[in-house]
Parts: sequence; C-alpha cells; structure tokens
Amino acid sequence: MSALKNYSLREVPYYKVHGRTVPGVCPVPLFFQGSAVEVNVSGSELWIDIEADYHMHEMWVTCEINGELMSRQMLMPGRYPLCLFRGMSAGVVKNVRFTRELQAMTEDEDCYLLVHGLQTDSTFYPVPKKKYTLEFVGDSITSGEGTYGAREDTDWLPMYMGYSRNYAKMVSEALEADAYLISQGGWGVLSSWDGNPNCNIPSRYEKLCGLCDGPVNESLGAFKPYDFTGRKVDALIVNLGTNDASAFVQSAWSDTVTGERFEQRLNPDGTFHEEDLRRFKDAVIDFLKMLRRNNPQAHIVWCYGMLGYDLSLAISDAISQYCAASKDNNVIFLQLPDTTKETVGSHEHPGEKSHQRAARVIIEYLEKYFQR
Amino acid sequence: MSALKNYSLREVPYYKVHGRTVPGVCPVPLFFQGSAVEVNVSGSELWIDIEADYHMHEMWVTCEINGELMSRQMLMPGRYPLCLFRGMSAGVVKNVRFTRELQAMTEDEDCYLLVHGLQTDSTFYPVPKKKYTLEFVGDSITSGEGTYGAREDTDWLPMYMGYSRNYAKMVSEALEADAYLISQGGWGVLSSWDGNPNCNIPSRYEKLCGLCDGPVNESLGAFKPYDFTGRKVDALIVNLGTNDASAFVQSAWSDTVTGERFEQRLNPDGTFHEEDLRRFKDAVIDFLKMLRRNNPQAHIVWCYGMLGYDLSLAISDAISQYCAASKDNNVIFLQLPDTTKETVGSHEHPGEKSHQRAARVIIEYLEKYFQR
Amino acid sequence: MSALKNYSLREVPYYKVHGRTVPGVCPVPLFFQGSAVEVNVSGSELWIDIEADYHMHEMWVTCEINGELMSRQMLMPGRYPLCLFRGMSAGVVKNVRFTRELQAMTEDEDCYLLVHGLQTDSTFYPVPKKKYTLEFVGDSITSGEGTYGAREDTDWLPMYMGYSRNYAKMVSEALEADAYLISQGGWGVLSSWDGNPNCNIPSRYEKLCGLCDGPVNESLGAFKPYDFTGRKVDALIVNLGTNDASAFVQSAWSDTVTGERFEQRLNPDGTFHEEDLRRFKDAVIDFLKMLRRNNPQAHIVWCYGMLGYDLSLAISDAISQYCAASKDNNVIFLQLPDTTKETVGSHEHPGEKSHQRAARVIIEYLEKYFQR
Amino acid sequence: MSALKNYSLREVPYYKVHGRTVPGVCPVPLFFQGSAVEVNVSGSELWIDIEADYHMHEMWVTCEINGELMSRQMLMPGRYPLCLFRGMSAGVVKNVRFTRELQAMTEDEDCYLLVHGLQTDSTFYPVPKKKYTLEFVGDSITSGEGTYGAREDTDWLPMYMGYSRNYAKMVSEALEADAYLISQGGWGVLSSWDGNPNCNIPSRYEKLCGLCDGPVNESLGAFKPYDFTGRKVDALIVNLGTNDASAFVQSAWSDTVTGERFEQRLNPDGTFHEEDLRRFKDAVIDFLKMLRRNNPQAHIVWCYGMLGYDLSLAISDAISQYCAASKDNNVIFLQLPDTTKETVGSHEHPGEKSHQRAARVIIEYLEKYFQR
Repeated sequence: MSALKNYSLREVPYYKVHGRTVPGVCPVPLFFQGSAVEVNVSGSELWIDIEADYHMHEMWVTCEINGELMSRQMLMPGRYPLCLFRGMSAGVVKNVRFTRELQAMTEDEDCYLLVHGLQTDSTFYPVPKKKYTLEFVGDSITSGEGTYGAREDTDWLPMYMGYSRNYAKMVSEALEADAYLISQGGWGVLSSWDGNPNCNIPSRYEKLCGLCDGPVNESLGAFKPYDFTGRKVDALIVNLGTNDASAFVQSAWSDTVTGERFEQRLNPDGTFHEEDLRRFKDAVIDFLKMLRRNNPQAHIVWCYGMLGYDLSLAISDAISQYCAASKDNNVIFLQLPDTTKETVGSHEHPGEKSHQRAARVIIEYLEKYFQR
Repeated sequence: MSALKNYSLREVPYYKVHGRTVPGVCPVPLFFQGSAVEVNVSGSELWIDIEADYHMHEMWVTCEINGELMSRQMLMPGRYPLCLFRGMSAGVVKNVRFTRELQAMTEDEDCYLLVHGLQTDSTFYPVPKKKYTLEFVGDSITSGEGTYGAREDTDWLPMYMGYSRNYAKMVSEALEADAYLISQGGWGVLSSWDGNPNCNIPSRYEKLCGLCDGPVNESLGAFKPYDFTGRKVDALIVNLGTNDASAFVQSAWSDTVTGERFEQRLNPDGTFHEEDLRRFKDAVIDFLKMLRRNNPQAHIVWCYGMLGYDLSLAISDAISQYCAASKDNNVIFLQLPDTTKETVGSHEHPGEKSHQRAARVIIEYLEKYFQR
Repeated sequence: MSALKNYSLREVPYYKVHGRTVPGVCPVPLFFQGSAVEVNVSGSELWIDIEADYHMHEMWVTCEINGELMSRQMLMPGRYPLCLFRGMSAGVVKNVRFTRELQAMTEDEDCYLLVHGLQTDSTFYPVPKKKYTLEFVGDSITSGEGTYGAREDTDWLPMYMGYSRNYAKMVSEALEADAYLISQGGWGVLSSWDGNPNCNIPSRYEKLCGLCDGPVNESLGAFKPYDFTGRKVDALIVNLGTNDASAFVQSAWSDTVTGERFEQRLNPDGTFHEEDLRRFKDAVIDFLKMLRRNNPQAHIVWCYGMLGYDLSLAISDAISQYCAASKDNNVIFLQLPDTTKETVGSHEHPGEKSHQRAARVIIEYLEKYFQR
Repeated sequence: MSALKNYSLREVPYYKVHGRTVPGVCPVPLFFQGSAVEVNVSGSELWIDIEADYHMHEMWVTCEINGELMSRQMLMPGRYPLCLFRGMSAGVVKNVRFTRELQAMTEDEDCYLLVHGLQTDSTFYPVPKKKYTLEFVGDSITSGEGTYGAREDTDWLPMYMGYSRNYAKMVSEALEADAYLISQGGWGVLSSWDGNPNCNIPSRYEKLCGLCDGPVNESLGAFKPYDFTGRKVDALIVNLGTNDASAFVQSAWSDTVTGERFEQRLNPDGTFHEEDLRRFKDAVIDFLKMLRRNNPQAHIVWCYGMLGYDLSLAISDAISQYCAASKDNNVIFLQLPDTTKETVGSHEHPGEKSHQRAARVIIEYLEKYFQR
C-alpha cells in the first residue's frame, strides 16, 4: 500500500455531487437526504474528510461501494476523516458514494454536513452522468421516515428516516437516473399536517435549500435562489398532499406570537369544506405553475396515496384545472398503493415494502413514458 | 353408493345462484361470467343437468369443490348431465360451485347456458350468504380476457376469457363477498374501443342482462328491467374507461346502415379534443347517477389504469363534478397498476399477475373502507 | 372455415407421443400422467378422437395450447371426439398438447385412455424433440396427488392428482426436456406405505406399463418388457422412499390369501430396526443397478424429502454403497425441501407450492449439471 | 433529558452477552460474529464504551434497536464511547443489541473488540433468555462472507462478511433462539480450502475461541478450554464440508517451514480418491464424537450444499457410520439449496437471498423437530 494522500475537494480531479448544490464549491454542503459525493477511485483505501454538526437531530450517512450499501451510521459533531474502505485490491476501480441519509432539518438550525476532501493512495476517474435526471419533491414519505425502525417505534427521529430504503432511490436506480430530492416531514402543499400555513413546500422550492435554518446554513448559500438552469429534469415526481389531508382533521392552528389562525375544515357530514378544499386546489395549481416555470421540459408526475387516498379527487381536479388553463398537458396524476399492515414501517409511516410497491408503480410508468 | 336421484332445480331444497337472475326461475340461466349455481351436498357423487348452445362462441365453465378449481372446460351444445364429482366420502358435506367462465356475448345471439337440475345420492344443505355484496361493472378486463392463453395468442376467443383468474373473483374471495359481474369486452362508458356509441355499458346496465341478444335470451327475460331491490350492494366496482381511451386513437366510426358517424378526436398535439372529452365526462357523470339511483347505499369505487392511465384525469374530474353537483360523496377514484411486460397475458390484455396486483389494491382499499 | 377432416392417428403426418409407448401404434394408449399426444397444426379447429373407460376411478385430462393450460376435465367412458379448440385464426400454427392427468391405476383394471385420431380443417407440422430427455420415477408425489383440492380434502381421488401442477412438468419445461413419468401413489422401493412388499416400483419398472392391470391393458401391451433402447435418458429423477419410511410406522402387513407377512420394524427407541433398514437399502441398491442397466448414460438423481427426511441417511448410504461397489459415480442424492403448512395441498400431500420449491432445486441442480 | 451516567459493565444490573464468553468478565470480549451485548433500557440516550484494534482487518459492528438494524459501521482502533441512540422518549424501554459483524480472525492477531461499559440517563431492565439455544459451526458461509458487497467484488474483506444478513441470524430469530456462532472462512472439517490440515474447525472447537491469535486474545482467555456446561444447546447446526470439497481440486499443500505436505486427491476420472475421502469421513465422524461429548443433549443437524453438493454422499455416509457405531441417532443430514446466479453475493459466496433460502429449510426442519 502506498501512502495516503490528502486531497481538498478542489484538488480531486473527478467527483460528482448529487442533489442541489453550487457547482465547484468547497467544502460542499450536502443539504438533503440523497445528497452525496460520488467518486471512482482505484486505491486500496479511501477516507473522506467531513464536518458535521447539530443541536438536536444528529446526522446520519451511508456509504455504498459498487452500488451496494456497506455502512449506515450516526455522525458525531466535528471535522474528521471517515474511512470508507481499506484493504482493497489497489488496481481495481471502485465506485464509492457517500450519502446523507437525513432530510434537511428545518427544526435544527445547527444541523449541517460538509465534505471537505478525500484521502487515498491512488487515482480518481471520471464519474459519468446518468441517462435521466429526476427530481423528487415531497414530505416525510420522500424523507424516508419509517423505512428504518420497528413498527412499535413512534419517536420522530433522524435514525428512522433515510434515503437508503427510499422509493426515490429505488426509482432512480431502476431507471439509471441522477436524482434531486427536496422534502420535509410534516409539510404539505398548502400547510403542515397540523395546519401551519408557513410549512408548505412551494414557499421553499425555489431556494437552493429552503428547508433548513440558521446562520451556518445561510453562510453556505442555502437560502439563495436556486439556479434551475444548471440541470435539465426529465421527470419531476411530486409526492405531496398527505399532510394537507391531515390538516383537515386537526383543530385550527394559531401562531403563538401573532395570533394568526389557519384552519382546514370538514363539513359536519365528514366531507371537505368546499372553500378550504378550493384553497388547497389553488395551492396545487400555483405549485404546478412554479414547477413548470423552473422546469420547462420536465414531465410532472404528481403521486399520491401511500398514506391514504383522501385528496385524490382534489389533486386530480386541480391538475385538470391547471392543464385546462395553461394548455400544459405534460402533467399526470399517479396514485400509489396505500400502505397496509404488511407494508407499514415505524412511526405509522410507509415501510421499505411500501416504498418498494410505490417505486414499482412509478418505475413502470416512467419506463413506458421514456420509451415513447 | 346409493342410487343417484334426479332433482329439478325447483326440487333442490338449498342452492344459491350467483350473479343477476330472476329468483326461483327454473331452468336458471347463467348470463354472465361468474354466474353460478352453488350447493352444499353430502353425497358421493354429483351431476348437474345443463343446457348450452352457441352459434360462434362456445361456452366455457368451471367447477370448484370446497373453493378449489377442479375443472375448466368447453361445453358442447345440447342438454345433458355433467359429472361434477364422483367417488367421494358420502358422509362429508362438500361445497360445489358450477360457474360460467364466459362473459355475456352480445355477438352471439344463440349463446346461452341453463341449469335445469342436479343428480346426487344424498342430501343438500343450506348455502349461507356471504358477509358483503359487490358488483363489478367493466369491459374485457372484467371479462378476464387474457387471463388464459399464451402471450403470443392474439385471437379474440372465449377460451382466453374467464372468471376463474379474474380480479373480481380474487377480490370477492378475499373479502368474503358475494359478487355480481356485468361486463363486455370492447365496450366503454360512452362508446366501444372503435367508437361505436351503441356499445356502451350504461345503456344496458338496468336490464337483467342487456349484454346478450336473440330470441332465446329474450325468452329467458334477459332484456327486462333488472330488479335492483332484490339485493343490497355494499361496494360497486366500476372498471371502465379503457375502451373510451382507445376510441380517441381510432378513426371515426360509422354505421354501415344508417351512415351515422361518431368520433372521439385528438388535437394535433396529441391531447384530447376538449368537446369530445367533455362528452366522455358527461357519460361518466350520467352513469354515476344511474348507478346511484339503482344502488343507493353502495360505495362506488371507480377503478382505472390496468391498460394505461390516459383518462385518469378525465374520470377523476367527472367524479369530482358529479360529487359537487349531487352532494353524493360516496364515490372514490382508485387507480390500478398498469399492466407490464411481466404481467401481461394473451391478446395484450392483463394476465393473471396483473389481475392479482389490481385485486390487491382493491382488496386493501375495501378492507380499510369496510372497517371504518 | 373449411370442412373438418377425420384423420386416424396413422394418417396424421406429424405428431409426438409423450411418455412410454410403442412407436407407431394406433390407437395410442396414454398409460401414465404426463403421457400425451402433441401436434403443431394450422387449422381453425381441432378435435381429438378418444376412447376412455374405468370401473372406479375416472379419467382426467388437460389440453394445453401454445404451452398454456386451457382445460382440465373429467372424461366420460366411451369413444367420442373432444373439441380442443375452435374459432382460431386458421393461418397460424398452434401447438396443442392433450395430456393424461391421472397416474396409471393399479387399482382399476378397466381404467384406460386411447387416442384414435384427430379432426381438423388444416395441416399438421413437425413437432421437434426437446433438448433433453428426462425420466421421473416416483410415488404419489410424482403422481401429483394433492396438487388439486382443498387442504381439508382427504379422499383418495383421481381429481386431486395430476400432471399439470407437478414438479415433473415444471422441471421438464424449465429445462426444455421431454419427460417420461412412471409412478404409483402409495408404492415404494421395497414396499407400499402399509408394508405390502408386492407394491414396489422396481418390480414394474422394466415393463412398458406395469402399473395397471386387466385384460384391456394387457391387450395394449402394457405388461410387455419396455424397449429402453428407443430413447436416451439424460437424467433420471427418482423420487422414492416416502412410502418405505411410512411402512416402518405401520403394523405388519399380511396377505389375506396366502397369509404372507411383511413388516418394517422400529426399535423401541424409535430408531429403524437394523435388519429391516438393511433390506430397504438393498432394495435401493438393486433398483439403482436396474436403472443403470436400462439407462447406461443417464445421470441418476435420487430425490427425497418432500414428505419428511426420515430415510435420507439410509438412501444416501445405499447410494454410497452402490457407487463404491459398482464404480458407477453417475448418481447423486438430492434432498428436496419438506412440505410445510404453507405449501401443503389436499390429502396431506405436497401442494403446488411445494412442487414449485422442489422443482426449483432440481432445475438449478440439473442446469448446473448440464452445463459442465 | 437527565445527565448521562457512566456504567462499567460490572455496574450494569442487567445485560445479556451473546456468543461464547466467560460469565461476568469485564471488559467483555466479543470474539465471534454475532457475539453481542444486549440491554433493555429506558433512557433517552445510550452510549457504549468500546475498545477495538486490528493490524490488517478492521472491525465491523451493527446496532439494532427493538430488533431492527439501525447502523452498520467500521470501527476505528482505540477506546471510545459510541452513541447507539439519542433523542428518544425517555419513558419507553428499548431493546438494544450491539453486535460484532466480523468473524474471529485467525489471520490478524491484533484483531479484537471489547465492551467496557455503557452510558445512559436512565434505567436498565432484565433481558430474558430465549426459548431455544442454538450453536452454528461453520466456514465462510456461516461468517456471512458475500452477504455484503457487489457481485463483481472479489476481495477478501471484513466489509463483505457479517452476521446481519446471515442464515444463522435468520434461523435464530425465527425460532426465538439464542445463538452461538463459531466459524472461519476457508476452513473445513479436515483441512482448509487449499489443503492446509491445520486449518480445521474441530481442532479449535473446544477452546473458548480458538479462531483468533496473538497475545491480546490469549490474555482475554480465548485459548482456554470452553466450559460447555454453562449452556445447554437444543440444536447444533454444523455447516461444514465446502472447503474440504475444494481441497480435492487444489494442488497439494505444503508447509513452507516444515515441508509437511497434504493432499486430497481426485482419481483420473474425476471421482474422489477413496483413501482421501476415507480420511475426510473419519474427520466428520471424529468431529461428531467431539460435538456429542460436549453437547450431550443437542440435536445435531449437519447442513451442506450452499456451495455445491459434491460431498453430500460422503458426509451422509460418515454420519451413518457414526450413528451405527455410536448408537447415537440424534443426528440428521440436511441438504441446503445450492447458490445460483440469482442468489449469489460478492466474492462468489452465497448472497442474502441464498441465506434466506437456506434459513427457510433449517427453520422449517427445526420447527417440526421442536414440535414433536
């Protein structure tokens, strides 16, 4: 084994960053679950020079070698090197992907993960682009909440979330696609699960990473407008509506400071209050306009159903209205199989099996779509 | 073994007829796939006294014993006894179901199947009603076309259709439900796959069996209004729209006699012509009104997707409009997984595996629905 | 459709007979489950001219078209034509296989099935030989007992037996092999399940079909020595021992006429009586000699385990002794997964799922073997 | 959250050590894959105080919470606390298992893993014994080699081995059993895969952990005789023979120091050399005697086949001879399904799917055995 050499990321001749980022920045922040640094490297040993911190919710990462999961672990705060492999045959090129498991964390302003560089005893090789580019926009389902943990576990914990057993990963791998993920547990198109109208994905979609907080993330450029021209998304998979449905069965939300109130009401007979439903549909329509403005060529697939079908008709209706008004027909509604006792994971969220079923429906749909 | 004794159906103390029928009629016609005579009987041997005929499309039937398929066979024309079992332990009660495999045949006016009676050496026992009652309304998918036959087979044949590998059967058995089926290959809500506006299911839904023809069937009462008060359907599964989608990509249909023309048009950019789509949506809305009028308490589940998602938004939109106008919210849209290369059967129709996937989605949905 | 034409089997230019038979005989008897007449034919309609009879145990058959099961049915006694398909596109060549489901029946001397000829409106085409040739030798498992019927069914009935869900069929199809089957429910290598030493497969193996009885079968040549030179078996799958194991837990068998007694004993501690086990092993060794004598080139795979592993060591031991003494090492012992609550069928016999698991083990083994 | 408190393992009132160990020792060495410390604890946070080292082959561990895998990671050398969970609801009792993934390492004398203690903010609860006790004795298969890593990976690496996707884990969990594992990649009953007669499991079986080396492990008591009286094994699963089969196709092994030679020969016709096979069988017989001496009540299940069936007959034969000579019939031979292209993992070893298939056969067998 030759000696290990330190490379700042700037010095690494070939590497690929997954997820939204600023090209060429060093250290590179990994903002979202699925955000990753990927290299092809021929050495016998590889370390990654990382920096992580948090206040409440600790960081989790995975390492894959040649496409197979090797490790999944909690990160301690601080800056330090982490060994990704050692003792391998030096002459062979390995594909290595170091991936953030944990979603962007609006609730922890100290939470971040940076990659500063790499150490190896050998050479880097180019990492090609994949055939397709996808973006997944969602809530806790897309954050993979429930894909780890026992069924009886009910804590809201980083440990139970992840990219590694996520339908977004399954879909991307099956279609040979690069993927962007942006999601936040509990958030919806119009409001959060408990009716907070500030917790809606559209309000953050156009920032680099609007789903985090605090001065460190600000200094990393998270809140700047995202440059959508740097990528060309083939299909945009939106998986939102589940928390909006939940808001209808919660009591009114009020801002403890301003006293502002927000409520999505049910009628006495259990049906949705027409006006409030209208407000939700308008949010869907507005979000579709925003998505289209930023991704002119993307096929938009609005998925829904993994935690109940309650807003299927409302979402379909909003899509229909958007299509009719905009003459943009490059949008489809795709219902995903609901989660059952057999497929549920921890915290009453879809488990790995539910993600597999959902992924299969999306994969089959997109395979057919891409073939025409 | 004691001697066999002939029983006219009138003399059989206990038997159950599945599918739409006139109570107490003898011989009993089995009009639809899934229509059946079921008995609990303790003898060592059981024969059924049947009568069948056809001009072009021969009859197929199955026999199940204790819920397991024993035989599936083509019937020769004529009246004769058919042995359902022999040589069994006489003291044990067996459940036997003799079932029509073949859909009602609009294209063969001589096609019918009658049950006149039974022969056994022992005693009949009551056949209880199941927990739920379902009705399935559909097209070739609900007629089970493609569930038999090799993938390369492209003939339109009775042999390739059936109830025995049909999602309707799977759903009914999983939910412990009695089932009514009414379907016709090639037909839609508004028109047939090739745009014939006379071939629409709603125009026949209110007859006992409007999906057959000819004097024999007329004499059997097929064209009389069906008495919907004789049953109480818990859930009504509609699986229509596939042929209506097909009509949009066919050239105009014209009646060779009257010269009447009908066309569902696409715009030059491949999207649906608005006016024609409107016409389809109106047909969906009108059919929902008809279904509700005749089945006031039924939960209506409009399923769609096993052969493509093209009209998902249109169907959802029509349902939304129906719900808004009628204030009837007891309707849901349920998308079924599209058929793939792995799940396709003969004649480019869903194979048994596709039916299994669809059934699972419906079963899971209805299990949840029935539990609330 | 042109007119149907009658062909005596002698006049059919191309057809293939599956299973042991006398080449060119007409009518051709189908002695065993899996025995079949197969044709490639281009007509719109095909009938088969058959003759069947029985005293107690009725005949069952299947028809496959293009490799897919179309019908399974009970046959009435007599000679008559049976329609295999009708209404098909005339120009296309269809592969049709008419197959006996039911094992040879030692217990019913009137039981037989003959094929006299065919009727079609078109032309016959050659039916090629498959890549490999296999012979399966067994007991009720190889007769497919339990692959049909409900779990609670305990009758010993033709209806519950069959080739169509049999591991022998699954193996043959997966390996693209022609198959010979010879088996009898309840029989073993040394004795039957209840210790009758006359009911052993080796004593009948060298006859054309030693597993039937009566003057009709005699006149068909069933009891004549089988001409093993007419075929070259690549692999010979023996699945015997299950009934021999059962004999050890039954009380002594005695011949009601001669008073002859036979017993396979257990020791008081539940282990096998050494002398009796020796007798069983000798029977295995002798049968291996017989199999080898008649099939010099065949790879012999002695399978065991689908209904318990009790005689695994004894069979292995006998094979080892045979190999050591004969210097013939072209024999292997292959344990098949035991049947479980999840995989059991009717009459406490392996169900279709158990056959699938067993088939997979054999297929994987033989694929590897054939590749070296 | 209350403050974390440090507990030496001696101070922890309730904990369970999995795998062979010396009761009550602190720090407790985890010698084998599957060796673990398990606690039930109610705090919001849990850390484990560990110490690890190696020269060549780094240590890997997993953490499971409530029976679900949370992390799998490489350990850096040194003594330090590792966080197992944080941020959980304090009042709920969690089951936590910290498990060594990596087999004992004969090839790295500095390789060890110790647990010194735990840190938590709450209380420990008893960890009950499981229903059954199993011991698994094997080679690389039982070390889980190949259960991680891509198919094309061919390095011999700790990273690719593991307990977490191992049939031994699957069997133990399905049967609710505590498990002991002892295995070494490349080793056999008589010799290693390349014919080294010193690398045989029986020579080390009676030591606490004979499959490691060096002064540190010696000081931990690894080479002392294991006290078999401290446990009562219900079933002992031996999965050996694969490397012995391999030795037959390797050229002769010779000791570079002493010049000692060892060879397992094939005859020119490819069959096993009788004398050498005899030597192997004797090793099997001797090992069975050793296993029985130390585990008088254990049901011994000798498994074989996951990487080929070559020595099936020889192993069966040896078992038969052992049984006959010892009158000990509490031994069975169980063939496991061979690994296929679909079920293979990295380094041409059984992948997770192959382990699942093997586990199912063992589970089903033992379930039946335990029920009688």
